[in-house]
Amino acid sequence: MLNLMEITKENKETLIKELKGRVAETEQEIISNVNGILSKVKSEGDKALFDFTEAFDKIVLKNLEVSKDEIEECFNKVEDDFIEALEEAKANIEAYHNKQKSNGFLMTKDKGVYLGQRVLPLERVGVYVPGGTAAYPSSVLMNVIPAKVAGVDEIIMVTPPDKDGGINPYIGVAAKIAGIDKIYKVGGAQGVAALAYGTETIQKVDKIVGPGNIFVATAKKLVFGEVDIDMIAGPSEILVIADEKSDPSFVAADLMSQAEHDRLASSILITTSKDLYEKVEVELEKQINTLEREEIIRASLKDFGTAIICANIEECIDISNAIAPEHLEIMVDDPMQYLGMVRNAGSVFLGRYCPEPIGDYFGGTNHVLPTSGTARFFSPLSVDSFIKKSSFIYYSKEAIEENGEKIITLANKEGLTAHANSVKVRLNHGRV
Amino acid sequence: MLNLMEITKENKETLIKELKGRVAETEQEIISNVNGILSKVKSEGDKALFDFTEAFDKIVLKNLEVSKDEIEECFNKVEDDFIEALEEAKANIEAYHNKQKSNGFLMTKDKGVYLGQRVLPLERVGVYVPGGTAAYPSSVLMNVIPAKVAGVDEIIMVTPPDKDGGINPYIGVAAKIAGIDKIYKVGGAQGVAALAYGTETIQKVDKIVGPGNIFVATAKKLVFGEVDIDMIAGPSEILVIADEKSDPSFVAADLMSQAEHDRLASSILITTSKDLYEKVEVELEKQINTLEREEIIRASLKDFGTAIICANIEECIDISNAIAPEHLEIMVDDPMQYLGMVRNAGSVFLGRYCPEPIGDYFGGTNHVLPTSGTARFFSPLSVDSFIKKSSFIYYSKEAIEENGEKIITLANKEGLTAHANSVKVRLNHGRV
Repeated sequence: MLNLMEITKENKETLIKELKGRVAETEQEIISNVNGILSKVKSEGDKALFDFTEAFDKIVLKNLEVSKDEIEECFNKVEDDFIEALEEAKANIEAYHNKQKSNGFLMTKDKGVYLGQRVLPLERVGVYVPGGTAAYPSSVLMNVIPAKVAGVDEIIMVTPPDKDGGINPYIGVAAKIAGIDKIYKVGGAQGVAALAYGTETIQKVDKIVGPGNIFVATAKKLVFGEVDIDMIAGPSEILVIADEKSDPSFVAADLMSQAEHDRLASSILITTSKDLYEKVEVELEKQINTLEREEIIRASLKDFGTAIICANIEECIDISNAIAPEHLEIMVDDPMQYLGMVRNAGSVFLGRYCPEPIGDYFGGTNHVLPTSGTARFFSPLSVDSFIKKSSFIYYSKEAIEENGEKIITLANKEGLTAHANSVKVRLNHGRV
Repeated sequence: MLNLMEITKENKETLIKELKGRVAETEQEIISNVNGILSKVKSEGDKALFDFTEAFDKIVLKNLEVSKDEIEECFNKVEDDFIEALEEAKANIEAYHNKQKSNGFLMTKDKGVYLGQRVLPLERVGVYVPGGTAAYPSSVLMNVIPAKVAGVDEIIMVTPPDKDGGINPYIGVAAKIAGIDKIYKVGGAQGVAALAYGTETIQKVDKIVGPGNIFVATAKKLVFGEVDIDMIAGPSEILVIADEKSDPSFVAADLMSQAEHDRLASSILITTSKDLYEKVEVELEKQINTLEREEIIRASLKDFGTAIICANIEECIDISNAIAPEHLEIMVDDPMQYLGMVRNAGSVFLGRYCPEPIGDYFGGTNHVLPTSGTARFFSPLSVDSFIKKSSFIYYSKEAIEENGEKIITLANKEGLTAHANSVKVRLNHGRV
């Protein structure tokens, strides 16, 4: 099912270029629709939210906010083993993200000078959570826990109501476990608009995170600057590096675990063994019939499934670095010895018993990762995504008297005489 | 010259809203022009750079790269006191940014599990530096030093050629002192395009930083995603908090030091003393005639100069937090006692002898700061702007056997059976 490529000196660069060349563009029509929704919510507030919810979700809501009773009710609707697994996942995610916390610093210098950097949590964060059939409670944990650990004062969730005006119970449970402060039943671009501009009921936030469909993603892009946003996620990607000893059934299963996300998802096998590749092909056919999303997986593998044969593991990693995958599995013995060679990857899964879903659900690392080759410069969602830094500096009279002339020289060379003047008045006791 | 406002309970919110409500939008015409330049550089490479340079900068270049001799030549054209001041500024900026370096971490758990986070420098960064009359050598230091400290492999600068095909000598000197690896004579949107896509001569980068005119800023916005970019800077802002003991000549000078940047710059005085405000007005008139950019300062103060009278310093800071200024001066005794109340500000200047130009040029903090109220969620340019993080996790056979069922439960609830399957094959020794 995979498209086979064998790496040679001649084709290496072209191949890498092709693998990197997927960029999605948003249609003008969607942008203009979403812009209409944003400006209506900005001008009409809550009224627009009720109207759009009636139009798009086909439900007339009485209240936007989900009550405490409604949340408690969710716990009665879901299975105990789900709650237990989610609680344990939360503990793992929290422990990992606690390690990401950073401190500011203070430097002192001669003549009473001091300067430094403070690390401050954002005040209010909004989390968008899709509803309906594609409800992902794991994504609630992954977006909320880093914000909690960062110390964000208030975390607000918006999610579309279901056809009865309720919320998905798995989402409700995850929200409560993660520690969300308030939940509102509003989805789509109107949900993003409410978070970005605020309404009578929903308070304006500083940052919006969380996945969503094309309307949600477009709305987030358009409000960026008014508020901060997380990354705009592209199609999911997995890159599996395997050797001749890798179990082909593991490799096949892992490739398909990404392929099931989306017809545009990429599943790439890079291996030192053509024999393994052939066995993986057999395994793919064997396993695919047992999977619910067979059709999506077939379509995804046909268009974006790739197998690349390399001379050695070093070369495999070389190509992986050029692709900068969202998920990278290194399915070999002693995988740690190769980690230092990995330059670009969102999250790396080491060893033969570490399939990527461990990171999606349970291990502790974040599953919100840079896609489409952006791991070259973007990072996983983290505690740092929910803080801001602020610098400070103190100069004494003696310190500006010592250094003032140098500052005046630099300002004057840039033609900024009012900058120079602000130092001069202090050197000259208020005289210009 | 300032617009006076007195804070009451009634007007506080409206006032803050007005002060925050400045957002610039890029005209469609500029976007389409810039898009044309980007795609020409993408398809034609160096040839397009030579063509655009001839068209826009009116110069036919032989080479794009600035030679070592040309850089050495710059040192002969600039004054020794400039070089000395710049060298000392570099040392201060380097010392401060060295404190920003962060480490990854490793956690170990039962059954051989380990996970962690790596901090990796970006591989190649491009710095845009404006040329011509508005050449800012300080900006070269502020953009390059954090990248050097982060450990970026290669830092490339692009800057437009002057009318003789050379570069501004102050920029050349600053580039050499900052430790730029290569300089190319290409400016405008075409310079940004070259960095984003690469050409025969210029290598594609991972991130583009540095200030520029509307064409440069628009080009940066449009290539975002293909590469990372720094913030899109809005007009500069200063907010001065002062009490009855503040020297009105210092306050007036500091307000004008921002006003001279731009007609759209905001200079805001928040004070507990109406008497001080009146004296500042007198000082503004007294000092303004001595400044080269008098006309810009008058225009800026007329439209965006504001004085707000508050009951006490706490209320001053309250309003400042809502405005989230780029630069905040707290011009009082014992200023450190108020720092903890400051929630939103790019950089804070403490005390009566710490005018903002100390941070622009010399003190060590970065002068690339969040503008237009974005200090609510954005941070100063820092070492963190030039790194990315990558997570990793290892699970042993025993660890997945212990936790596998929980992961399967969570995946199945989300309808992702191929995710569950990747765990199952490992629990079942390859059988589905």
